[in-house]
Amino acid sequence: MKAYMIELGKQAKLASKALGAMGVGEKNRALEAMARALIQGKEEIQRENEKDLVAGREAGLSAALLDRLTLTEGRIEAMAEGLRIMKQLDDPVGQIVEGKRLENDLIIERVRVPLGVIGMVYESRPNVTADAAGLALKSGNAIILRGGKEAIHSNRAIAKVLNEAGQAAGLPAGAIQLIQHTDRVCVEYLATMEDYVDVVIPRGGQGLKKALVAVAKVPVIVTGAGICHTYVDRTADLDMALDIVKNAKVQRPGVCNALETLLVHEQIAGDFLPEVDRLLGAAGVDLIGCEEARSFVPHWQKARDADWSTEYLALTLSVKVVSSMEEAIAHIDQYGTKHSEAILTESIQAARLFQQQVDASAVYVNASTRFTDGSVFGFGGEIGISTQKLHARGPMGLEALTTTKYLISGNGQIRQ
Amino acid sequence: MKAYMIELGKQAKLASKALGAMGVGEKNRALEAMARALIQGKEEIQRENEKDLVAGREAGLSAALLDRLTLTEGRIEAMAEGLRIMKQLDDPVGQIVEGKRLENDLIIERVRVPLGVIGMVYESRPNVTADAAGLALKSGNAIILRGGKEAIHSNRAIAKVLNEAGQAAGLPAGAIQLIQHTDRVCVEYLATMEDYVDVVIPRGGQGLKKALVAVAKVPVIVTGAGICHTYVDRTADLDMALDIVKNAKVQRPGVCNALETLLVHEQIAGDFLPEVDRLLGAAGVDLIGCEEARSFVPHWQKARDADWSTEYLALTLSVKVVSSMEEAIAHIDQYGTKHSEAILTESIQAARLFQQQVDASAVYVNASTRFTDGSVFGFGGEIGISTQKLHARGPMGLEALTTTKYLISGNGQIRQ
Repeated sequence: MKAYMIELGKQAKLASKALGAMGVGEKNRALEAMARALIQGKEEIQRENEKDLVAGREAGLSAALLDRLTLTEGRIEAMAEGLRIMKQLDDPVGQIVEGKRLENDLIIERVRVPLGVIGMVYESRPNVTADAAGLALKSGNAIILRGGKEAIHSNRAIAKVLNEAGQAAGLPAGAIQLIQHTDRVCVEYLATMEDYVDVVIPRGGQGLKKALVAVAKVPVIVTGAGICHTYVDRTADLDMALDIVKNAKVQRPGVCNALETLLVHEQIAGDFLPEVDRLLGAAGVDLIGCEEARSFVPHWQKARDADWSTEYLALTLSVKVVSSMEEAIAHIDQYGTKHSEAILTESIQAARLFQQQVDASAVYVNASTRFTDGSVFGFGGEIGISTQKLHARGPMGLEALTTTKYLISGNGQIRQ
Repeated sequence: MKAYMIELGKQAKLASKALGAMGVGEKNRALEAMARALIQGKEEIQRENEKDLVAGREAGLSAALLDRLTLTEGRIEAMAEGLRIMKQLDDPVGQIVEGKRLENDLIIERVRVPLGVIGMVYESRPNVTADAAGLALKSGNAIILRGGKEAIHSNRAIAKVLNEAGQAAGLPAGAIQLIQHTDRVCVEYLATMEDYVDVVIPRGGQGLKKALVAVAKVPVIVTGAGICHTYVDRTADLDMALDIVKNAKVQRPGVCNALETLLVHEQIAGDFLPEVDRLLGAAGVDLIGCEEARSFVPHWQKARDADWSTEYLALTLSVKVVSSMEEAIAHIDQYGTKHSEAILTESIQAARLFQQQVDASAVYVNASTRFTDGSVFGFGGEIGISTQKLHARGPMGLEALTTTKYLISGNGQIRQ
């Protein structure tokens, strides 16, 4: 298995050199060919997807997981559409980020270049296979994909279609590779092949990420864990707050930028919490409260300490009453995952302080945390949402898949 | 020891919050106070430095190491001058990197913020203590310093002086902390305290870095290993080439951007290598050649395979004859450390291809690799030279010690 992985790594490294030198026209033609091939290969992909669904039902996967796994015609068309959107995006490679001429006439330019080889580890949704391959290609990188074992047939079919079309359009053979084995040890090899892989990006549960970071020698960009909070200040417009809280919790509860814990200032808790109960209860949300929250709505479940550090990804919301914004910030510091945090307030000072003091990739004032998203932010897609501070923070578009190098041109300069 | 390290981490985290909110005026006043205190504390620092020198002589340190360890009056003044230069630099914190208004009137700004807490692990030169503390402070970060055990008295004295002056000028207590123990296990704790430390930057030998990466849970930025090559193309101006090669090897051989391996095109080897022998031999350089190089200068030592992967950091140069630029690039790919590489050529095509294909932080045409340096590049100093691709590449100035966050301001926006 190790030999197999090293071979993938070597192929990818080799391909990355050709990809880094490809012009934007060539890359766009390959993206178009891949998009077309997905549409033409729809039936083949669905046939393979059916195998995963049968196996998933047998293995007793939840309805939600089976839904994520399902490739309807619409979803395959959406994958193709995604690749076509990437065609429209500016190619970051070759961009001259900055430059200057020194006193001694040496010209220094800082130029954007691909990272090289990206390792991508993800779970159930097979559309990530096409999205990640497209973003990697557009940014001039080779990619080694490792999807979840429950989607292996679907992922193989998608990767096969993309590869056949891509190579016919001029991509090198190792540009897009899917790890064909579902053995866990492959992930470990991927994260330790520092000679062949430049970065590993895990997308999925906390367990996966911790396991990866523990063994990795290749740099890892941690993405997507979102225990997001919304703090309703005593100065908040409560009608606006109700709309925002409902949207952040209910509109799509299974994603990382959805609300998990509501923090409410004690001065308005008596007015606000019964309204939250009414509105979110009617939307099917299970509400869990701290002692003080339950003094206003006694029928809520009692929060255990573990609730504050749980990413529900479901119609469940924990609620805590705080005596000040400082207490809210301290709670976020302790339990947050540095993803997306919001304050709802009419106070310009409170807004300013909250945005400055909360340490997260996105800090909102008077809006739903659901907006933290590569498409919303204008990146045309995202390979994940980084919750770490180094290299990339927040939604990661094409630029996050690049680095820079300095090109220095002289005519005989030596150092004194 | 673990409890001690965690206490340092907690203090640093606490201090980082205050530092992140400090204005540039306050930070500059602290830098000025620290610079003045270094000058005033000169004698105390030299007294403590003498203890390290005595111990170093007893331990049989080499003359070169003892020299690096020595704090002359001039070197202490240079440390103070370094802090004053940092005062002049633009504060990166608070810079609005980009921003836009979305269709729904949501305003998104990307703002530069400090990383938080920096762990810095370095070896013999005690001036790094002041440089790193100054750069961390100017960029709003707390720093935990871990110098080499041979410089422990000097580092303690410098850190004490900086801290007393800094705190009198308003710095929080945990802003600049030196690990007081020389036990190796402290470094391991530092690299695994992911709750308190945001990045660890090792500066020193390859052994240190590999050991760190192997245990780290905190992100590591690897710096400074430099097996730098200069390739002399068949089209090179040989007089210019001689000057550049001599400068890159001889001007300061103990630093990471100095030349270690010279690659020479076979068509000019017969003319060029005897000149190299004459000029560099006269400068005291030990020359080591491949079989073919030795056919032109038979008295050179024979290169073993290990020579190509050795960073001599001394007046030693390995020389290899290649039959093409492609062979030169393949050699650099195999043995280089992605630091600084150069081509000497009069061919515009060769220059372009070499700069595109060589994967390194700095790729030169017709100049000495010795220019890869934060001061030369205009950063006013550097915390190290990153040889990795993520987050920072090449000389790391203040900006490399920051990250960004998105601030999103709305008036009730919810996601559809």
